[in-house]
Amino acid sequence: MEVRNRLLNFKDAYIYQNDDWFKFSLDSVLLTNFVTINLRTKKILDLATGNAPIPMLLTYRTKAQIFGIELQKEIYDLGQKSIIENDMSNQIHLLNIDIKDTNKYLGFEQFDVVTCNPPYFKTNNKELLNDDKIKAIARHEIFLNIDNVCNIASNSLKNKGIFALVHRPERFLEILDTMRKYNIEPKKIQFVYPKIEKEANMVLIEGIKNGNCGVKLLNPIIVYDEDNNYNSNIKKMFEE
Amino acid sequence: MEVRNRLLNFKDAYIYQNDDWFKFSLDSVLLTNFVTINLRTKKILDLATGNAPIPMLLTYRTKAQIFGIELQKEIYDLGQKSIIENDMSNQIHLLNIDIKDTNKYLGFEQFDVVTCNPPYFKTNNKELLNDDKIKAIARHEIFLNIDNVCNIASNSLKNKGIFALVHRPERFLEILDTMRKYNIEPKKIQFVYPKIEKEANMVLIEGIKNGNCGVKLLNPIIVYDEDNNYNSNIKKMFEE
Repeated sequence: MEVRNRLLNFKDAYIYQNDDWFKFSLDSVLLTNFVTINLRTKKILDLATGNAPIPMLLTYRTKAQIFGIELQKEIYDLGQKSIIENDMSNQIHLLNIDIKDTNKYLGFEQFDVVTCNPPYFKTNNKELLNDDKIKAIARHEIFLNIDNVCNIASNSLKNKGIFALVHRPERFLEILDTMRKYNIEPKKIQFVYPKIEKEANMVLIEGIKNGNCGVKLLNPIIVYDEDNNYNSNIKKMFEE
Repeated sequence: MEVRNRLLNFKDAYIYQNDDWFKFSLDSVLLTNFVTINLRTKKILDLATGNAPIPMLLTYRTKAQIFGIELQKEIYDLGQKSIIENDMSNQIHLLNIDIKDTNKYLGFEQFDVVTCNPPYFKTNNKELLNDDKIKAIARHEIFLNIDNVCNIASNSLKNKGIFALVHRPERFLEILDTMRKYNIEPKKIQFVYPKIEKEANMVLIEGIKNGNCGVKLLNPIIVYDEDNNYNSNIKKMFEE
């Protein structure tokens, strides 16, 4: 069912979602807070943008032009609807194309920053036999895997440009290897733990194209406190 | 100055140290708690054992035979003194040799588990010009670097044997690469943060020789609470 939710608690912006498929979640909020953005950031690309939560959230951090790529027409349409309602179409530009065609449409080495919240799960393509193809494509590596993402990010970034993604810790070593395969050197890593006594269930990784070696492990993000409420740093992210 | 300290708060065991050089610290306690030991663990090797805190701490977890290698005679002597006083010489065997000769003395593929708390810092060999050579050799990669450690660990381990080390996060990617260079697949990683809002300052990594891919990111270890007291999980480690 299509729903209209507030993008952040104290902002007058809304996001259209379809809760049969998925709703934007903490991953996108964390990635938007994590990625390095500064005054020289003029052009940002968000790969596999979905219903465009990351581009919309980024408008609160930057005046840069933001491009989002989404393969699935139904999800792209939701994103467009939100962007028009929020009057963000001067800053956000969505393209309903296969991300493998990104550089054909947007050129090579044009971007200061690339972000991505990609499908997390490996596929055996059986997911496509389900009724729920839209959800399957968003969650499984059916049309997009880590190698594709890193390859396209690298092609899209200027020299010393920044690539930031969020993923699952079990794919962590594979991500590090693949980033370096495409000349993106990991520089900043942050693990997200659901509770203080639990294993990490998300990792945020940022690399620099043709960057030098040397990585920082940022402070842990602990999502919930003992009483299963959001910790104050998480609450703050939703209240910006 | 040589001092005699309790090994753990509630155990009647002591460790001789020389505080001009260094004292055993949280690193060794964390590594001893982190490494996977089970009933099938019969032979353990601790590389760069120093004054043998890890072998001594391990006696509270296992009945396995434990071998420690230490290059520096002065530090080896301290270790021997503690082991004799604690009546641990049936279980712990120290060798005062260069760790590069480990396999010459102890053979290949003999161990179920290898542990190491190696020198953390890169060297320009200028440290050797200081008066404090013993400290320099223990802290800097003068006679032992990550490549040596992983190579010797791999040679010493049986197939599917376990290698666990503690190091600094800025060397993290290099450690992962080097472990895999010597066919040790990283399986378990735990970051240590001095306080909840700080960057990680230690990492614990465990791999399996000829292991399958797939890594777990264990719960974060936060050492100090807001009032700069040890958190309860750390206190517990010293009280075992």
